[in-house]
Amino acid sequence: MIVERIHDSIKVGVLGFGGLGQAAAKILAPKKEMVLVAAADRKGYAYNGAGLDADAAITACYKHGSVVYLEPNGILSNKSIQDLVAKGAVDGYFLALPNLPNTFMADVARQFIESGWQGVLVDALKRTSAVEQLLQLQDELKQAGITYLTGCGATPGLLTAAAAIAAQSYAEIHSVKITFGVGIANWEAYRATIREDIAHLPGYDVETARAMTDAEVEALLDKTNGILTLENMEHADDIMLELAGICSRDRVTVGGVVDTRNSKKPLSTNVKITGRTFEGKISTHTFTLGDETSMAANVCGPAFGYLKAGIALHRRGIHGLFTAAEIMPQFVK
Amino acid sequence: MIVERIHDSIKVGVLGFGGLGQAAAKILAPKKEMVLVAAADRKGYAYNGAGLDADAAITACYKHGSVVYLEPNGILSNKSIQDLVAKGAVDGYFLALPNLPNTFMADVARQFIESGWQGVLVDALKRTSAVEQLLQLQDELKQAGITYLTGCGATPGLLTAAAAIAAQSYAEIHSVKITFGVGIANWEAYRATIREDIAHLPGYDVETARAMTDAEVEALLDKTNGILTLENMEHADDIMLELAGICSRDRVTVGGVVDTRNSKKPLSTNVKITGRTFEGKISTHTFTLGDETSMAANVCGPAFGYLKAGIALHRRGIHGLFTAAEIMPQFVK
Repeated sequence: MIVERIHDSIKVGVLGFGGLGQAAAKILAPKKEMVLVAAADRKGYAYNGAGLDADAAITACYKHGSVVYLEPNGILSNKSIQDLVAKGAVDGYFLALPNLPNTFMADVARQFIESGWQGVLVDALKRTSAVEQLLQLQDELKQAGITYLTGCGATPGLLTAAAAIAAQSYAEIHSVKITFGVGIANWEAYRATIREDIAHLPGYDVETARAMTDAEVEALLDKTNGILTLENMEHADDIMLELAGICSRDRVTVGGVVDTRNSKKPLSTNVKITGRTFEGKISTHTFTLGDETSMAANVCGPAFGYLKAGIALHRRGIHGLFTAAEIMPQFVK
Repeated sequence: MIVERIHDSIKVGVLGFGGLGQAAAKILAPKKEMVLVAAADRKGYAYNGAGLDADAAITACYKHGSVVYLEPNGILSNKSIQDLVAKGAVDGYFLALPNLPNTFMADVARQFIESGWQGVLVDALKRTSAVEQLLQLQDELKQAGITYLTGCGATPGLLTAAAAIAAQSYAEIHSVKITFGVGIANWEAYRATIREDIAHLPGYDVETARAMTDAEVEALLDKTNGILTLENMEHADDIMLELAGICSRDRVTVGGVVDTRNSKKPLSTNVKITGRTFEGKISTHTFTLGDETSMAANVCGPAFGYLKAGIALHRRGIHGLFTAAEIMPQFVK
């Protein structure tokens, strides 16, 4: 069995400690198989080999704006990755980083490669071009002994994997259509994520969205009654399904509706996989997420499921770049 | 990438050449990455290292009752597995065998272990107890250099894998409920499968169902207007999800409705995964198969997807027993 008994907890670091990173810390808190030992943000990091107190770390961020204010584990640093690597005790990192700028994830991967660290990296990035940049690091990751799993959030991630499973019934895939609904009561808790969404709107790009002040974001949302409707988004589900040999990327579309003023989802997030069976029938499989599941649950849950699967690969000496469409995530207890 | 370019086609054998085995041959016919070189049934086998003619093999069965009548490739034999192993040119087998008797799959696995053959075996078995028997062969399979993937059809298989993906959103899984609808216009094309279904009905077991004549099956179906309603079936989805650490087997239920006189499904096959998120919300993800997809497409498609994934594992030296809930199937072109 690939699913092996885990004798020692997997020591996990979370890079980025905004909304997603904090949700990740909460998810890990009750787990037996994983323990959060490191968390980093722009100002520095907090480290405790025996495990960080998730609630205290989140409180430090809420009160003082950074995880470095977590007493007594927080440390101001402008070279957090190097510092953490020097401690030598983290098995895998969840990169809960903003996707902006678009080169960020590849830059972070390069820092790990240069550091000499060996372990597992998992991201929940969104854009196709960000995966393209990581693909260029394939050989370097392999040589460095790093197992990097990309696109391991909700979409891409959970829904891409479901599409890869669903595709098995068909001889040919005609379309994969992902439609997401997101409801968040308070967009300020997801400042980076909302700016990424805005970057997909007509008239905006990654740079202009990133440069927006909170007041400008607020003004935009006032005009749309808090709703962002997104179509034909650049989402890495397309390149991931293409790399897995399932269909060409132009057959994959991603769109959605984000309500920034209501925690209730404006529609049920789903993926529809349409294809032709060997008997010549055209049909559609549908995977629909329960409305009560939050973006945080659907992103961070899979991310750690892939991190656990990545640890199993790494222990078998399997390194390099993989996507969520290639690997079965493992359930973390 | 685990998904590697396949330079030579994977040479595939199909053991069992009834309804499922014949559908498997049709599915493989247009594939570039796989070629059907061997097919076996009770009377013997047909072998052609350059590829068997699927249509001719099916016609031979239809006209004369066995694949051994395929000219010039058919051979009468009561030791088909040994004969085929001696030819030494099959990379992997799909065991499209009836699940009756319940020890059949483990017996076949044992024959491969004893033969000294190394390669990939994939089954689409149904019952929990059949997987339990295979689990006892775990060490022997590993030592023999065989990569065996079990439960790789529709349910267990496609739906179990979808449940394993869906589980990622939750901190705890409360229930996995599989409900299948099957419509077949002509039950005589699936004699073994229908007897397996009957074995799940109150008052029947594996032995009594197997002993039924066609006339007796026909008489039973006349009483129910051709409909078989099945509840709390012994299906290996439960042990597979338990082995994957997702939930205890008693939380997994399988039931369905089989219409033996209508190719239209009586209901849409689906799996519902209910759990609690880290935020304490209870919710349900749903994966629903398109009604136009046949049992054959939903069983044989995944089986070959897992066979391809098994070949990748085997080439990396990863042997032993795995389930469909642990491995991501790969799309076969």
